[in-house]
Amino acid sequence: MNASSEGYVLHDYARSSASFRIRIALNLKGVRYARALHDLQSGEHKTAEFLSLNAQGLVPAIETPDGAVLTQSLAIIEYLDAVHPEPLLVPAEPAAAAQVRAMAQRIACDIHPINNLRVLRYLRDELSLDQEDVDRWVRRWIGEGFSSIEADLAARPRQGRFLCGDAVSLADVCLAPQVFNARRFGMALDAFPRLEACFRACMAIEGFARAAPDGPAR
Amino acid sequence: MNASSEGYVLHDYARSSASFRIRIALNLKGVRYARALHDLQSGEHKTAEFLSLNAQGLVPAIETPDGAVLTQSLAIIEYLDAVHPEPLLVPAEPAAAAQVRAMAQRIACDIHPINNLRVLRYLRDELSLDQEDVDRWVRRWIGEGFSSIEADLAARPRQGRFLCGDAVSLADVCLAPQVFNARRFGMALDAFPRLEACFRACMAIEGFARAAPDGPAR
Repeated sequence: MNASSEGYVLHDYARSSASFRIRIALNLKGVRYARALHDLQSGEHKTAEFLSLNAQGLVPAIETPDGAVLTQSLAIIEYLDAVHPEPLLVPAEPAAAAQVRAMAQRIACDIHPINNLRVLRYLRDELSLDQEDVDRWVRRWIGEGFSSIEADLAARPRQGRFLCGDAVSLADVCLAPQVFNARRFGMALDAFPRLEACFRACMAIEGFARAAPDGPAR
Repeated sequence: MNASSEGYVLHDYARSSASFRIRIALNLKGVRYARALHDLQSGEHKTAEFLSLNAQGLVPAIETPDGAVLTQSLAIIEYLDAVHPEPLLVPAEPAAAAQVRAMAQRIACDIHPINNLRVLRYLRDELSLDQEDVDRWVRRWIGEGFSSIEADLAARPRQGRFLCGDAVSLADVCLAPQVFNARRFGMALDAFPRLEACFRACMAIEGFARAAPDGPAR
């Protein structure tokens, strides 16, 4: 696939939470894109060809229509916000932007990286943890993160429909894939009713639903 | 301490890498601030008083002069960039901003959270790893991250003085604390000469040096 003729090319893996965030953002903004799929389970992100595009060997990476290669999901979404501002996923006002970015980072920095594929592989292969202990590891960090988010939501004088008020934001774009991930590891959301309500509000939006790992093929 | 009379109040811990980032950013921008110190080793960040300020119970958190409480280091620095733009740590041009944010996130998302205090405690206390295995864990993720950054720097047609060119950026603000952390775990930087040169260029700047864990008290 060639970025200059196709618009954006997203280097993607269906079950990657970080790739899922990009698919949501592109859908919400109505930006067309092609997908280049890499099967992380069989190591397709560690080929010389992909590493020459992204030395970190991680998805997502995105080729822009003018030929730049961008990596890191939050950096990519901030770029999309600048170039395709409708709808803005990080608000323009500095304090509101800080609240949205902080909520997004509570998921994208403090939950997700501790549970991603390479870390779980290390737990299994190098520390010889069995599946039960791996599942407990994942649920610990998701549980700790979701609990603190739920506590913040509970302390607010008024609930919005989404994590940071009544408009969808970058925080929700991070939340939805993390909930899919939690479910994959057998976590119930009963303890997090406000967070679950935000998740449901997200998944009622076509751009979120279509981006899901088991969503309709594009 | 009271934010309205003191300007900014940074809830801080000397050895916290994420707090170190904020100290660097505030110093570079010449913004005065007071420090409220919390000893993470003895759990001072889990008191009811601090949790009422920051439900996540993590440092850094910052009280702004107008009374807002902001959390998550990258979100705080983007706020400071908007309110105190000189020097800008994330460039204004969208593609350049994406490169800086991505490099920062390679450290702040893909290295640091896997090695922070609560994770290392889990490895020791719940998985009964000895110190040697904990050190190996830390060095694995720092080594993987630094290797991919070094590979990117090596592939560039021209080296800048800093991680993203000749101007200090958010990427460098993340790099310096991560190098301090690497040294604490006995990692040599010999394998990463370009990265080490960027680190040295950073530490020659007064705002970086003064922010260091063992730097002069303010």
